[in-house]
Amino acid sequence: MYYAKPLAALVSEFEKMPGIGPKSAQRLAFYVLRLSEKEAEDFVKAVKDVKSLIRTCDTCYNYTEGTRCSVCSDDTRDKSLLCVVAEPRDVVAMERTHEYRGLYHVLGGVISPMDGITPDMLRVRELIERVGKGAFKEVILATNPTIEGDATSMYIAGLIKPMGVKVTRIAQGMPVGSDMDYADKATLIEAMQWRREM
Amino acid sequence: MYYAKPLAALVSEFEKMPGIGPKSAQRLAFYVLRLSEKEAEDFVKAVKDVKSLIRTCDTCYNYTEGTRCSVCSDDTRDKSLLCVVAEPRDVVAMERTHEYRGLYHVLGGVISPMDGITPDMLRVRELIERVGKGAFKEVILATNPTIEGDATSMYIAGLIKPMGVKVTRIAQGMPVGSDMDYADKATLIEAMQWRREM
Repeated sequence: MYYAKPLAALVSEFEKMPGIGPKSAQRLAFYVLRLSEKEAEDFVKAVKDVKSLIRTCDTCYNYTEGTRCSVCSDDTRDKSLLCVVAEPRDVVAMERTHEYRGLYHVLGGVISPMDGITPDMLRVRELIERVGKGAFKEVILATNPTIEGDATSMYIAGLIKPMGVKVTRIAQGMPVGSDMDYADKATLIEAMQWRREM
Repeated sequence: MYYAKPLAALVSEFEKMPGIGPKSAQRLAFYVLRLSEKEAEDFVKAVKDVKSLIRTCDTCYNYTEGTRCSVCSDDTRDKSLLCVVAEPRDVVAMERTHEYRGLYHVLGGVISPMDGITPDMLRVRELIERVGKGAFKEVILATNPTIEGDATSMYIAGLIKPMGVKVTRIAQGMPVGSDMDYADKATLIEAMQWRREM
C-alpha cells in the first residue's frame, strides 16, 4: 500500500478513465487533494450537473440540456441538410469548423459485428423516419473513415437512396499540411481514389 | 457554444487539471456523462473522501488517513535511516522500489527564489528538530536532480552536517537501460562525476 486508502480509491477512479494511465491518475488525484474546498465543490458540482442535467436531444440525439439541442432549435440552420455522425463528440468536431450550417443526426455508435453492435442498437430507424418526414435535400454521411464507419455509411446509404434523397460521404484523403512522404499507404490509396479534376 | 452548458462546465474543470488538454478534457467529460448513476456516485464519493479524510502525517508530513502515516507507524521500518523528499508523490515512487526500509520526511516543496519559496515555507525546521531528537544514523537527501532540488539538498546538508549526522545525496547518472548515444550532456557529465571504482 503506497497510498492512504481514500487516495488509492481516487487514483483507481481516475485510472478507469480513457487515456489515463497510473502516472496520470496519481497526478490527478494529488491535484484534487490540493484543491481548495471551494474548488473541490465546484468540481463535484460539475460532475453531478452533467449527470443530472444532460440528456439527448429528442430530434437529433446530440447531448443537450433541455429537450431540444441548440442546433435543432436554431432557426438560422439550413434545414435541407442533414449530417449523420456516430457520436456527440463528432458534432463538436464539426461545429468547431464553423463551416457546416445544416442539421445533425447522432447514431450513437457504428455498426460493429465484432462488438455485437447491430443497426437496431443505433438510431438508424429514427434517422430513416426523420428523412422520410423531412424536407432534406442531402444527407451527408460523416462517420469515421474506418472499416466500421465505412460499413455503417454504406448500410445507411442503402436505406436512404431508394427514398430519392441525395446521399454523400465525407472525403478520405491526405490531411491538410501533411507530408506525402509520411502518409500511410491506406490514406495515400484513398487520396488517389478520391481525386478530383482541377 | 459547441457544448450544452453543464458539459462545458465539466470540460473546463478537467482542463484545469495537470497534463489535461482540451481534447482529453472533452474525452473525460464524455466518459463521466456515460457513467452509470452508481459509477458517478462512486467517483464523486472518492473525490469527497480524499478531501475530507486525507491529511498530513504529524511526524513525516506524508499524506495519511489518520494522524500517523503507514510508514511511521510500521514497527519493522529502520528508524536509523531518514529519507528527505520534496513531495508525497516522491514517497510513493520510493516505496514502489520495495528497497528502502527507513523513514521519510516530506518537505512540501523545494527552495525556489524564483517562485518565492523560501526554507521557512517548507518543513525544514521540523526536519532539523526531528534529526536533533532522533537517533538517525544517516539522512538521505532525495530531492529531484534539478537546480532547485540540488540547492535544497545543499541547504539542508549545511544544517544537518554540523549536528554530527551522516548526510548523503542520491546519485545522478545514466538511467538504467538508457543509451549513451541518446543521453543529454548534463546527465553524461553527472554520470562521469559520480563515477565509482569497480
